[in-house]
Amino acid sequence: MLRPQRSTLAKWVRYKSDYLNPTIKQQLSHPAEIGSIIEARGFVKSTRASKKVGFVDISDGSNHQTLNIVLQGPDQPKFKVGQSIAVKGQWCEGKGRQPYELKYDPQNPGHSIAIVGDVTEDYPLQKKATSMPFLRTFPEIKHRTSTLGSFLRLRSHVEFKLMEFFQLQDFIKVTPPLITSSDCEGAGEVFSVRAPSDKPGESFFGKNAYLTVSTQLHLECLALALNRAWTLTPCFRAEQSHTTRHLSEFWMLEAELSHVDSVYQVTNFIEDMVRYVTQSLADSSKTNQSVDAGDGNDYVNGTYIEKELVEARWSKMLTPERWPRMTYTDAVAHLNKVLPQDEQLQWGDSLQLKHEIMLAESSPIFITDYPEAQKPFYMLKSANYDPEKPTVACFDLLVPGSGELAGGSLREHDYEVLKKNLESHSMDMQDMDWYLNLRRQGTLPHGGFGLGFERMVTYLAGHDNVRDVAAFPRAPGLCHC
Amino acid sequence: MLRPQRSTLAKWVRYKSDYLNPTIKQQLSHPAEIGSIIEARGFVKSTRASKKVGFVDISDGSNHQTLNIVLQGPDQPKFKVGQSIAVKGQWCEGKGRQPYELKYDPQNPGHSIAIVGDVTEDYPLQKKATSMPFLRTFPEIKHRTSTLGSFLRLRSHVEFKLMEFFQLQDFIKVTPPLITSSDCEGAGEVFSVRAPSDKPGESFFGKNAYLTVSTQLHLECLALALNRAWTLTPCFRAEQSHTTRHLSEFWMLEAELSHVDSVYQVTNFIEDMVRYVTQSLADSSKTNQSVDAGDGNDYVNGTYIEKELVEARWSKMLTPERWPRMTYTDAVAHLNKVLPQDEQLQWGDSLQLKHEIMLAESSPIFITDYPEAQKPFYMLKSANYDPEKPTVACFDLLVPGSGELAGGSLREHDYEVLKKNLESHSMDMQDMDWYLNLRRQGTLPHGGFGLGFERMVTYLAGHDNVRDVAAFPRAPGLCHC
Repeated sequence: MLRPQRSTLAKWVRYKSDYLNPTIKQQLSHPAEIGSIIEARGFVKSTRASKKVGFVDISDGSNHQTLNIVLQGPDQPKFKVGQSIAVKGQWCEGKGRQPYELKYDPQNPGHSIAIVGDVTEDYPLQKKATSMPFLRTFPEIKHRTSTLGSFLRLRSHVEFKLMEFFQLQDFIKVTPPLITSSDCEGAGEVFSVRAPSDKPGESFFGKNAYLTVSTQLHLECLALALNRAWTLTPCFRAEQSHTTRHLSEFWMLEAELSHVDSVYQVTNFIEDMVRYVTQSLADSSKTNQSVDAGDGNDYVNGTYIEKELVEARWSKMLTPERWPRMTYTDAVAHLNKVLPQDEQLQWGDSLQLKHEIMLAESSPIFITDYPEAQKPFYMLKSANYDPEKPTVACFDLLVPGSGELAGGSLREHDYEVLKKNLESHSMDMQDMDWYLNLRRQGTLPHGGFGLGFERMVTYLAGHDNVRDVAAFPRAPGLCHC
Repeated sequence: MLRPQRSTLAKWVRYKSDYLNPTIKQQLSHPAEIGSIIEARGFVKSTRASKKVGFVDISDGSNHQTLNIVLQGPDQPKFKVGQSIAVKGQWCEGKGRQPYELKYDPQNPGHSIAIVGDVTEDYPLQKKATSMPFLRTFPEIKHRTSTLGSFLRLRSHVEFKLMEFFQLQDFIKVTPPLITSSDCEGAGEVFSVRAPSDKPGESFFGKNAYLTVSTQLHLECLALALNRAWTLTPCFRAEQSHTTRHLSEFWMLEAELSHVDSVYQVTNFIEDMVRYVTQSLADSSKTNQSVDAGDGNDYVNGTYIEKELVEARWSKMLTPERWPRMTYTDAVAHLNKVLPQDEQLQWGDSLQLKHEIMLAESSPIFITDYPEAQKPFYMLKSANYDPEKPTVACFDLLVPGSGELAGGSLREHDYEVLKKNLESHSMDMQDMDWYLNLRRQGTLPHGGFGLGFERMVTYLAGHDNVRDVAAFPRAPGLCHC
């Protein structure tokens, strides 16, 4: 009746689980003995044929590389791009750039080749037709292309390195709620959430519920309780943004640190974090020309990513000195030296994308201490607060060619001051009582930041549109499946 | 104007970032030289005083341990539980069970002690009053208690080990969408999402949008494209469940594997995954009686978790043999041998929680091949499909004392069969066309599973209520902040 399968504890953690068919990445990085018979499975990426021999390149998406199948003899089976096939053949050393190839010989009874899944005549992912706008019209299969597959592999790698970094820095990963009854920024266009049973005056949660625009307020509770807390979590904005930089649903990395009282502690931290991830990419790019297992570095060896653009972006991140810091006030003065007369900035003006790109020309830069009037109620006043030009202890991280990647601040931790801030921002005091309470019970100086995860991945990938690094992007009018 | 802070690249990855105040966990695991002056910051957990000496235990939540502050001399400052304090004093070897203590001497001009944040007279987290129902009424500060803090640290550790496991197994971590226009299970009570601008006939996304109940259908797209994909992501259910096992917003671990054609490949995989995490907890429990850095094992050394219960659960997970597998049909026969006459099961009946607990008495168990009629449209028929007793190639993972922890299946990958399934389940064919399309374009056998993350953490923590391992639980009527 029961089917216990004996295995010793010592054996059960394996690199390759022997009950699974290996991925092509595993087959290439942990190659079988030359001459042995193995089976490979993947999608047909391309085919070539001559009289005596045929070639089929297959990929299973586990890495960017294709595996070359060599069909021997004159009667070669025909395949179409996109078909899912399974081939059993002889594992051989490759010719040319391929380290290995799989030889299928129809005369050999131990060999086999089969179409597992056919494609329709109009299968769209042909070699030539792969512009991004075209691919976006096939949301369910577009990730089988090399470029979009590589974006997803990069994203996974970046998340893993972030996890590693925060673990080293003694942070606890937490999950603040997505459904919330408070509205972090005090403005913001928020999606509301309703249950099928909701009626006027009778709602599922007993009050109005929204999708969070930032988890910061809840994260503060957790960071005070745990000293250092971070999250990587979906956030939502119901804005009519039709840009390459905005999504209605996006993932945000937020971190909050207790016992910090200078904004430069937070900028140092986020700089180290971004460097840690970027360095891991640069290292794997330099040292690995062959495929390596499990660390996601395969994509840098491909040719389909604009490698020079990518490496230029990485090297701008990896400057030998810390990235510059500049106050908003200094940034305005600096920009006015180079801006034409009719575009001069007044103190208090918002910095536009073009200004941000000017400031981050040669390396990332932190702009700190923005005018209080531009920022939300929870920010601490600047250390050198000037009532004539009131500023808060905050920063934006701007990156070359792209503008804002992250923003953060110290948080007002004094009860009376925060209460006044809430009043002057006309916030609902009852709704925010729980947040105010943090300042009533053992308050302490703290600060943190939020970073748009898709923006970071897009930047590191050398790409220009966040919609292509989100697996199924959501934007106004865009929720097809 | 700029404030570059020089640092060499070689130096920037540090265990302790020198621009941050260290956590108490770091101070205990990487101790300063005995006799040196250091500063510690935390919340007052308890105080004791005698004529000549006073004691204040502080905690910052970075681990379960408290740091003992010794106040020397007769004029000892007074502290209240919950206050946030900062102490500068001499780092000394501890007496009794504490490895170290911090001595504050008011006569020493290099020493200082300060209340950073006071508490109100009715500060609720006193030593005695910490029942779970009581703590749940203080959502913004409850995580400062040892037990709830330890649940969050455990959760963070489990996520890290999962990330490590999937990385080793060559999976890509992906983020399927939370806002979706399709309804995975074809039933289910789903939350709907609306933008402020929505009017009848004019919606933000151009169609009705919902919060996902499972990312499986989207995950299938990504797993086919990448061979193996996983996600750990919020899911939502608008059910009126007021139990210790359900949340309206919860995190779900979902994994999907290409090229599997036996349900036992999937059960082996999930078993190895759960064992990997559990083994890491058991290992740290055995080998570490002192505090170790960065691996989350600190909580097992505390006394506040019911250690025996926890270890009994872990050891049931870590059986020397693989967990048993039993078909639903065999399970019904097995149960009927022990169930009283008036509680006998008919083939086709659902297994209730009490049945699940009976089946998983001594170890976790997989129940496979449930009746087709109980399961969603996308499941593949069982290998030994019997039209008299039609079953599907699926499983539930049941754990001792707790019932279902995870469920999974092979997915129907034949276009015509899946289309018929959709029709017989009265699903909207147009809405599901993208999903059907996966079977039209290079289909291949695949399968996967979903696991309720809060249930797993609750089980491993030796606890009994998922609401306490979610930082801010959401349930009917529960969305206070």
